[in-house]
Amino acid sequence: MTAAPDDWTGGVIPDGVTVALLDGGPEIVADVRLGGVVCGVRPSAHRDPDQPDLALLDVGRPVPAAVVVTTNQVRAAACDLAAAHVAAGPVRAVVANSGNANACTGAAGHRDAAAVVAAAAAALGAAPGEVVPMSTGVIGVPLPADRVVAALPDAAAALATGGAAGERFARAIMTTDTVPKRAAVRVTGPEGQVLVGGVAKGSGMIEPALATMLAVVVTDADLDADACRRVLAAAAGRTFNRISVDACGSTNDTVLLLATGTAGAVDETAVTAGVTAVCAALAAAIVRDGEGVTRVARLRVHGAPDPVAAEAWGRAVATSALFRTALHGGDPNWGRVLAAMGTSSHRFDPDRVAVRFGGVEVCRDGAAVPYDHDAAVAVLRAPTVDIDVDMGLGAAEAALLVGDLSAGYVTINAEYTT
Amino acid sequence: MTAAPDDWTGGVIPDGVTVALLDGGPEIVADVRLGGVVCGVRPSAHRDPDQPDLALLDVGRPVPAAVVVTTNQVRAAACDLAAAHVAAGPVRAVVANSGNANACTGAAGHRDAAAVVAAAAAALGAAPGEVVPMSTGVIGVPLPADRVVAALPDAAAALATGGAAGERFARAIMTTDTVPKRAAVRVTGPEGQVLVGGVAKGSGMIEPALATMLAVVVTDADLDADACRRVLAAAAGRTFNRISVDACGSTNDTVLLLATGTAGAVDETAVTAGVTAVCAALAAAIVRDGEGVTRVARLRVHGAPDPVAAEAWGRAVATSALFRTALHGGDPNWGRVLAAMGTSSHRFDPDRVAVRFGGVEVCRDGAAVPYDHDAAVAVLRAPTVDIDVDMGLGAAEAALLVGDLSAGYVTINAEYTT
Repeated sequence: MTAAPDDWTGGVIPDGVTVALLDGGPEIVADVRLGGVVCGVRPSAHRDPDQPDLALLDVGRPVPAAVVVTTNQVRAAACDLAAAHVAAGPVRAVVANSGNANACTGAAGHRDAAAVVAAAAAALGAAPGEVVPMSTGVIGVPLPADRVVAALPDAAAALATGGAAGERFARAIMTTDTVPKRAAVRVTGPEGQVLVGGVAKGSGMIEPALATMLAVVVTDADLDADACRRVLAAAAGRTFNRISVDACGSTNDTVLLLATGTAGAVDETAVTAGVTAVCAALAAAIVRDGEGVTRVARLRVHGAPDPVAAEAWGRAVATSALFRTALHGGDPNWGRVLAAMGTSSHRFDPDRVAVRFGGVEVCRDGAAVPYDHDAAVAVLRAPTVDIDVDMGLGAAEAALLVGDLSAGYVTINAEYTT
Repeated sequence: MTAAPDDWTGGVIPDGVTVALLDGGPEIVADVRLGGVVCGVRPSAHRDPDQPDLALLDVGRPVPAAVVVTTNQVRAAACDLAAAHVAAGPVRAVVANSGNANACTGAAGHRDAAAVVAAAAAALGAAPGEVVPMSTGVIGVPLPADRVVAALPDAAAALATGGAAGERFARAIMTTDTVPKRAAVRVTGPEGQVLVGGVAKGSGMIEPALATMLAVVVTDADLDADACRRVLAAAAGRTFNRISVDACGSTNDTVLLLATGTAGAVDETAVTAGVTAVCAALAAAIVRDGEGVTRVARLRVHGAPDPVAAEAWGRAVATSALFRTALHGGDPNWGRVLAAMGTSSHRFDPDRVAVRFGGVEVCRDGAAVPYDHDAAVAVLRAPTVDIDVDMGLGAAEAALLVGDLSAGYVTINAEYTT
């Protein structure tokens, strides 16, 4: 067994399978054409032609797919349509805009989302049900759908293969993101090779289940829709559902997996390893680019009686403002780790807990142990901090990736609409 | 019916009852003697003789009491003893230190807390079981109990009546608080008058159920222990359990009610109104003095099918970092209110929700309505912001008091121990 590239999830690659990181995103898969154009929904798009705000991706024919959308009760129209279209059968294309989430926009928002889908389908020569829409940006403001509709013929005409087109798609879905986010791998298993490439956006409103994030992952593995669902559920559960920037669930989160099938059938566990690796890399990129994030913690909670409890304790720490400010300050304040877990409804024995920052044990049996304070501070002031919490209760574990809470987060979010 | 002074809780005063605010704290009640001295647990105490860090209060004889302590599983030794002593019978005294929470300190922490209680009892001529201990400060560092024990005879000798002694008690329990917090009322009902006076500390780790806070409330009403429990549960439920600064539950929260009985029997609803008014004023003082807080929202969620759902939706908003940064920025970003409520497990219909900032309706039927943006910004930039959320589903409601999230919070908490 080998660890996946950039693997923070604690997952393992099956025996006989290797996962190699590649440059690029979805465009590494044959038949993927994509791009991004300026449609004028994002105000800054008017000023900078290198800031596209309308992204389009097409694989040329309907293929099996799976999608995960936000569990927030306040759900954007695009999420409703994305879930409905994927549930109804194969899909071929993604249309995504930034600058406006088209959420909390009532019946008009649903009409606007449907109009965008219809226009994308017409431009691509596809059926509307084969197009998956996504939106991200400000909430509660009507989507200027006419601008999106008007730009779609140009967006379709500009579809291309290759890395430059992939980069334009990635840039077109950015909001407060500062860098485009793409990841790709080649998975080699006993039965052959498959490619997996993905693209994502997200930097605020990031929390487990899910982040404010959009992601499109394409593989050339031959999977049916049920297999797509299994693979995506397994991959998202270890990656996008295990990150936290600010514990704020979004209205628009969407993760789509498309399986074009040109590589033929490959063992599903190998495909799962590849999709997980791509999702892990994209999720890590989201946390690193999190609003105001200056430092990332790889938080591992182990010694738990079951995985659900392990995740709940990890999530309590990951969403604690006090823990995240201590992480920002590089402060080995392990008491905040215990205090945060203590608010969970999952019971544990504080007197059995041990905490390590990197190689430095700071707490054993729930109490302080003598430790080298300077060494702990050095661990905590690095860009990536490994925090290990042993509950002393069992063999289950969960890994989470957490961004710190800085003054920069406040500045970014205090005046987002005004 | 008249509203209570400084009432943000939505509670009402029963007919025939008036509640008048007074200056002072617990010392307005006869037989209360209190004070604060320097014992040297808080490092700064060595440098500033006006910064006491050991507080003592005594009513001279065991009286009926009730106590609420943190629900955090990681609970300080003082909380264990406070709960046990009040459960066992009447109590007469409070001993409280700041600078060290004596939490996450293992078996030694329990021995230290017991030693402090024993020393306080000896200094007062009381039984140990009649003394309620409280601690607040850094977690995970052994309490220098010898310093507390050594200072207790002086603390007992310095006990006094009057406002100056009350102020010294209030100062001795402060940690990151910038102001001492006291409140008092006279309640006049058909059956007579009672006094209620309280003192509290708290500014970080503040969230519903409970805040990192200590509070002692004394009344001269004649209540038995069962009545104390009912009155405190009703008052804390509407006040200390409905505030949020940073959604971080503490290891040490304790709220104690003592009933000395010298005023005789008065209608319990009148006493409840008085204790609620004192707790509301102390809770408001805690939020206003919250770490980095520059602005406070009085959040009222109404039109709910039941109070539990109303509180859950309010709490989801109150603990949302995105909502609280928008509050900080004075940004009428009502979409964040809906998005935060959407993460609750209590179901609602987004298309029935209306939101007002002060008198400005910004959302109706879950979507934007045209509104005067400048007027909404003016509402949001005031020190106190009224936010009204109508769920359109029923007649139940809940009121919460919420502090904004500023860069100041990050600065205060990033390097608390280092």
